Parts: sequence; structure tokens; C-alpha cells
Amino acid sequence: MTTVVFLSIFYIEDFKKIILPGRRNCLLRFFVGWAQLKFQRIAQDGKARAGLLETDHGVIETPIFMPVGTQGSVKAIEHRELDELGTQIILGNSYHLFLRPGMNVVLQAGGLHRFINWQKPILTDSGGFQVFSLSDLRDIDDGGVTFRSHLDGAEHRFTPESVIQIERQLGSDIMMVFDECTPYPCEFEYARKSNEMTVRWAERCRIAVEHQPALYGHSQALFGIVQGSIYPEIREMSARALATMDFDGYAIGGLAVGESLDDMYKITEFTEQFLPSDKPRYLMGIGLPENILESIERGVDMFDCVIPTRNARNGMLFTRRGTMNIRNAQYKTDFSPVDAECACYTCRMFTRSYIRHLFITKEILALQLASIHNLAHFLWIAREARKAIIEQRFASWKSMVLAKLQTEPAIIQETSIS
Amino acid sequence: MTTVVFLSIFYIEDFKKIILPGRRNCLLRFFVGWAQLKFQRIAQDGKARAGLLETDHGVIETPIFMPVGTQGSVKAIEHRELDELGTQIILGNSYHLFLRPGMNVVLQAGGLHRFINWQKPILTDSGGFQVFSLSDLRDIDDGGVTFRSHLDGAEHRFTPESVIQIERQLGSDIMMVFDECTPYPCEFEYARKSNEMTVRWAERCRIAVEHQPALYGHSQALFGIVQGSIYPEIREMSARALATMDFDGYAIGGLAVGESLDDMYKITEFTEQFLPSDKPRYLMGIGLPENILESIERGVDMFDCVIPTRNARNGMLFTRRGTMNIRNAQYKTDFSPVDAECACYTCRMFTRSYIRHLFITKEILALQLASIHNLAHFLWIAREARKAIIEQRFASWKSMVLAKLQTEPAIIQETSIS
Repeated sequence: MTTVVFLSIFYIEDFKKIILPGRRNCLLRFFVGWAQLKFQRIAQDGKARAGLLETDHGVIETPIFMPVGTQGSVKAIEHRELDELGTQIILGNSYHLFLRPGMNVVLQAGGLHRFINWQKPILTDSGGFQVFSLSDLRDIDDGGVTFRSHLDGAEHRFTPESVIQIERQLGSDIMMVFDECTPYPCEFEYARKSNEMTVRWAERCRIAVEHQPALYGHSQALFGIVQGSIYPEIREMSARALATMDFDGYAIGGLAVGESLDDMYKITEFTEQFLPSDKPRYLMGIGLPENILESIERGVDMFDCVIPTRNARNGMLFTRRGTMNIRNAQYKTDFSPVDAECACYTCRMFTRSYIRHLFITKEILALQLASIHNLAHFLWIAREARKAIIEQRFASWKSMVLAKLQTEPAIIQETSIS
Repeated sequence: MTTVVFLSIFYIEDFKKIILPGRRNCLLRFFVGWAQLKFQRIAQDGKARAGLLETDHGVIETPIFMPVGTQGSVKAIEHRELDELGTQIILGNSYHLFLRPGMNVVLQAGGLHRFINWQKPILTDSGGFQVFSLSDLRDIDDGGVTFRSHLDGAEHRFTPESVIQIERQLGSDIMMVFDECTPYPCEFEYARKSNEMTVRWAERCRIAVEHQPALYGHSQALFGIVQGSIYPEIREMSARALATMDFDGYAIGGLAVGESLDDMYKITEFTEQFLPSDKPRYLMGIGLPENILESIERGVDMFDCVIPTRNARNGMLFTRRGTMNIRNAQYKTDFSPVDAECACYTCRMFTRSYIRHLFITKEILALQLASIHNLAHFLWIAREARKAIIEQRFASWKSMVLAKLQTEPAIIQETSIS
């Protein structure tokens, strides 16, 4: 297997140098494992879209919510449980995986899919966000970023090229370009300059994938990331520039970093018009169910967020009738399920009373059951949204769901789960 | 349902007072839900026994290892995973469950089985061990023990009668008598007096079950506990006294508290001869796979221990070739399963390299996968022991297993799991 891969690389590299010096060549794309990602829009309702995103690890039905597996594990959830919940794609993070287990381990394992034994699609974030937010930043220049690991202080340097190399070694189905995610608030001038750099880095990532072929025999798509803080003119520049680079998809980054909901929706809506309509759109790091619904309505296809799993670990559960803090005394003898309409393992099997007890007694099972349920809820939202779009009733369905989400969860004292 | 239970209690209490004033009456046993636990020995090989223990929640095949679910959850394991592992019975702890969630919650839920939604047998420890070891002890007298909760300092009193009431309210299939588990080392005189009290308490528990009928329509057995530290004469007294009380089973308590392995085996072997051979024997809180095998050979049928789950959470994994600390650097690129001969989810799906990574990055999934595997290993040991006893090859099988357990786990660098 290893031999075959190495031989393939050798031949591809050779072949490229001699016959295919140009970029954006279909044949080259095919040979370097960067075949155009197929995205098929199968329905549209207003701006909301339902689509099929084809990867070599399976077809993803959009709109989709992608559980976050930063370090190669969606926290407190087993892979077979992800399957059971209808997970179609998970995230991994280049920064974290680069530090641990390190590229040497991932390479020896044969890529991230094999290392973690997850055979469905994986999207890897470039690590830009983490380099700028987590690490001890040493130096940022147009070439790249020198930083110290948040774990052991070791110095590393990320460049657009090195990040593409990492993502090739991870072998994710969807790679993200290396970008600077500006903090909020952010001066216009900083945002403008940062975005110019991000656009140049995007171009370099775009070139790098052509010079660094896929390693594991499956194709890897590359998404551009629109930045520009809350400034429409920068967002427009960014989106227009990236659109000319023929990415496989386009992400809107740098939102949900502290700006108002109003700004978030406005920027999403504004940016959308400059993105190629035949490519998938991914709103990074967002968010609450209501944010997801509002953004689907504005033409977004893909979402990821740590909220369902992180909040689960804090005892905050999402239901069709709003959120609940399961630690509250009111659930002490509430023998109804977390969400009577939910079909997940947690809701089929256990009561609020038992789950509360598990949280109060600090049992790990509390984290497992809560995470299963919250992910089930987010995946359900995306699945139902898709159905509603296909059936051309998205707006009315969304209003109904939002109205219910804003009610308090019913306290059903007498109904037993079993 | 509640009405039916209350009515039944009323009639039974009435019936008892009028017609059945005596103890140890079969009809009474039947009516108060304390039908004789059926224990059928189906094979014996030396002193090692294979049996069937019938409860209203299912038949347990002995020898058996019982995973510990102290607070109503086997740590980091879902119920369906316990099922998958072949778990036949789990433990709950009266002391912990009395404090949290409290008897009021358990009663309203309809007992522990319903509260935690586990429909197979449950054995509840009486909480004696915890009262004496965990709590701030206030007062111990022949009547019972006054103590302060280790959680909030609230004062409580446990007596043999109140503990039976708790176990009735929990509704466990096997209740344990309230005893004092002496610490180690322990003066002869202290051990003797303590045991005399434990024997008197056992007698009171034995009477209490007859005056406090079962609450949930299923039978609950009661086991006596032999104490006596490492002193054969006290152990003999204890065992002989308890044997006259016609318990459904007999536990050997107060071992694995610091004494030598040699003492532990000697006391187990010595005590066994005084226990009714037609009743199940349970060695409490033991132990390592080798301890379990040695004790099966000495005639023990039932085991429980936190070792498989607790050690799992510390990264110590049991394999057929000894234990391994999965955090060790040697497993960094070891793409073989934890135990190639193990059929558990962890070993079927994941590599040592990935599990090590999960531990190093403090992922909750590490605890889940390690706990699944360790429990699988312990349940496998008990299952295989049973087979060997039935096939009259226990001694040779045990030697073979022990020899393998003492080797170091093979480092298989090149074999991939997938």
C-alpha cells in the first residue's frame, strides 16, 4: 500500500513537470487528487438551498451540521454513535493535530481517516484561528506566522504552503485555506490589510495544492475563506477575489467572534451575493439552532460549532422547546425524557431525573448522554431544514420551529419514560 | 401501578400479622417478595463451580464478574454497552444512592431498575464499607452507626433495619446485610468484637426483610457477609453463625484491604469450607484477573471490583498478555489493537496509537474506550473460566491464562487495525 502511494506520487510529480505545467487544468486536478468537488443543488426555496456534496468518502446532504472533532474525537461520542446520529461529516483541526499526535504519526497511520478510523468525510480547519487565538504569537509577516505551541512553548511556523502540506498529510476530504481570522472589534484598516494578506495566502494555498498531490488515493477539495470583519466593502473585495480563484467551496469566516447577531446576519446575507451560486457555502463556527436556521435562509449550506457538545458537558440541553439546564432542581423527579419528540438514545432510554442525577454526581455518562442528545438535536435541525427546502416550505417551517424554540421546556412530572 | 403496589403491601402486611407470625416460612418468603434465590450448580471442577443464579430480572451464569455502578452508572459506559459486553448483573451502592439522588427520588421513579433503566439484575452493597471508610463517623453502637455525609456533612443514622429499608426501596435483586468491614491491620480483639456485632446485625437484617416486604413486585435475595479480618477462628465463627441464618448467598468481606495476597487466598480458602455449598459465594471487591482466577479455584462464584473501570480511566489496560500503560511512548505509532484476541468495540475498531493519543489529549473518548475494553476483559475471564469448569479443564486453562497474563504485551508495530 505504502509502495503504491509512493510510486503514484513519483509518477504524478514527474508527469506534472513534463506535461502539465499550467494551473487549473482538469486533468491535473484529476491526477493530483484535487478533482473538482461535485456540488449539486437539488432544490432552492428563497435563498435556502438543498444540495448534494460528493466526496470520495461519501455524499453529504446539505444543509449540514458538522460535529467538531478538533483532536480527532468528537468529545464524549463514539464513532458508531456519530453514525447512529446520522453524522455525515466531522471536523478536525490542523493546528491541534499538527501538535498532537503530530504529522509523523498521522502519516504512518495512513492519514487521519485511518488514524481515527472514521471512513466518512472529514473537513480540516487550517488552524488559522488557533494560531492567532491560542498560541503565543511570535511573528506574523506576509510569508506566514511564527508561533509558540500553547502546549509546550515549542516554536513552529505555519505558511500557506506548510498548512496545505499538513492538510494533505491529514488527508481531509475538504481542506480549508490558511487565513487570519480577525478579532472583534477590529479597526477597518487592520481588517483591510489582514484580508489582503488572507487573500494572498488563499492564492498561495490554491497553488500549493497543485504542487502537493493527495497522498492517500482520494480527492481533497479546497475551500476559500472570506474575511473582512463587519465591513461590507472588505467582505465584497474578499469574496470577489476568492471567487476568481475557483475554489471548491467558500467559507464565511470571522463571524460569531463577538459582533451583534444583527451584524452577523447582515454580513452573511451581504457576502452571499458575491459567492458563486454553484459552490457550497460554509459559515464557520456557527452556532445556535436559531443562527443556523437564519443562515440557511440566507443561502448557507454548511455549519460547524462546538456549542452542542461543549454546552452538553455543562448540562445545557437543547430541545424543540428551548434549552434547559438539566442540573436545575425542577428536574429532580421529572421522569420524562429530555425531549419527548427526539429519537436519540438518550431520549429513548433515560429520564431528565436520571440525567440530572448523573450530572450532580459528576458521572462521565452524563457527558456522554448529553452530548449524544445535543448533537442529535443539531443534526435533526439540519435534516428537517433540508426536507422543508425540498418541499418548498422552508419559511413557514422555520417560523414554526423558531416559535417553539423560544418556549420553555415543558415540565412533565408524571409521565414516565419507560 | 403505584396503587397496585400499595394495595399489595397492605394485604401482605395484614396477611403476615394474622396468619404467618413465624420466620423462615416458605409461604411468607413468597409473599414478602423474598423467595429463596435459586442457585443451581451445573458443574464442579475441583472446588471451582459453574452455576446458574436465578433472579426475577434474569438468570446469571456463574462464575460472574459484576461491573460496579456505585451511583447508578458504571463509569463511562452506556447501558447498551454493558449489554453488548455480556454484563449480567451490575452493582449499586446503598450509601451513595441514599445520599444522591436520595430515596425519595428512587421511590418516585419506581426503584433503581426504573430510575437508571437497567432491566437486568442489580446487587446493592449495604453501604457498610462506605459508612466506615468515607463518612465522618460520629458514633458507632450496637444499634447502628451515626455518621456525617462525606458530601455535605449532614448527619444520618444507618441501622440494619434502615439499610434493609433502603435496599427495599432500591429494589435490588440481591441485597447485602449491613456490616462493619474492618480495616487492615486490625487487632484480634477488635476484629472479634466487630464480627460479633456484624453477626448480630446480619440476624437483624435477616428479620428485617421479613417485616419489610419488596415494593416493586419482584423478589429480592439477601446475602450474609463473613468478616473476621485475617483471623481464621473469627472467620469460622462468622461463617458458621451466618450459615445457620439461611441466607440466599454468602459473601466474604473485609479482604483486599491491605493484607498480603497469601493471606487473602488463605482466608478465602479457609472460609469456603464453612459456607453452605448449595449457595452462591461472593468475594467482595476483588480484584485483578489473577485474583479472580485463584478465587474461582477456591470455590468463589461472584466478583466485583472497580479496578477494570478505575484503571481504565488511568490508562492502564488489561490484555491477555498482561497490562499496559497506554500513555507510554512505545505505543505512539503502534497501530495494532490493544488486545488482538479481544472482540470488544475498542479492539475491533481502534489502535493503541489512537487510544494513546486520546489519553494524551485528555479526550473523554479515551475513558470510554479504555473502560469498554477493560470490562470486556474481566467479563471474558469469567466467561472462559465457566466454560473451562464445565469442560473439566479449569486447572490447565487457568495455568495457561496466568502464564500469558504474566508476559508483557507484544509490541506489534507493523500490523494495522483496519
